[in-house]
Amino acid sequence: MRQELLNRTFSALADPTRRAILIRLSKGEATVQELSKPFFTEMSAPAISKHLKVLEQAGLILRGKDAQYRPCRINVSNLKIAADWVEQYRSMWEDRFDRLEVYLKTIKNKKKSKRKKNG
Amino acid sequence: MRQELLNRTFSALADPTRRAILIRLSKGEATVQELSKPFFTEMSAPAISKHLKVLEQAGLILRGKDAQYRPCRINVSNLKIAADWVEQYRSMWEDRFDRLEVYLKTIKNKKKSKRKKNG
Repeated sequence: MRQELLNRTFSALADPTRRAILIRLSKGEATVQELSKPFFTEMSAPAISKHLKVLEQAGLILRGKDAQYRPCRINVSNLKIAADWVEQYRSMWEDRFDRLEVYLKTIKNKKKSKRKKNG
Repeated sequence: MRQELLNRTFSALADPTRRAILIRLSKGEATVQELSKPFFTEMSAPAISKHLKVLEQAGLILRGKDAQYRPCRINVSNLKIAADWVEQYRSMWEDRFDRLEVYLKTIKNKKKSKRKKNG
């Protein structure tokens, strides 16, 4: 079940329009019409609707019950599950950046002591 | 460029075998042969190789130069980019859980004071 949820969540996030929709919805709910407005994207309402369906099936958005407008709002619970999965590697990249920092400091100190010797 | 990177990263993560490979590689490098061993998955070496290609194209793994074995190791930099994208919603779900906690405490306190009244 959790694997299936991760499949659908990551797959939904693999598209730039769907990510843009989520960013827009994080600022407040919106209708399909609002999401299809030219300043947001040049996509037609039917194209946006298809993306919304993918987001809804992944549990990343919720749709209102109003038959005509069905306003969309973001549902962050599944995003948290995806974040938790990626976060398990945090210690790995933090270690890496720590090591890089130490390395850069070593180079800096070497250059300093070289300048002192020559100066 | 960053959008393209996020597309490829999330798309690569949308598969359970590829996620399992990353978890395995987070413990140390491995060859295709090792990744195809029955205790890890029941997939054939060619099937695993296809998944490795996707992971390599997404920059999530690096392959060694040894022509025969080409050991794979995890590359966490792109995972960090994906994590950063998802993390922008952290405040949203934390707010949500904070509100839920307050709500649950309110219920608990109400029950307590009801018991005191009746007891």
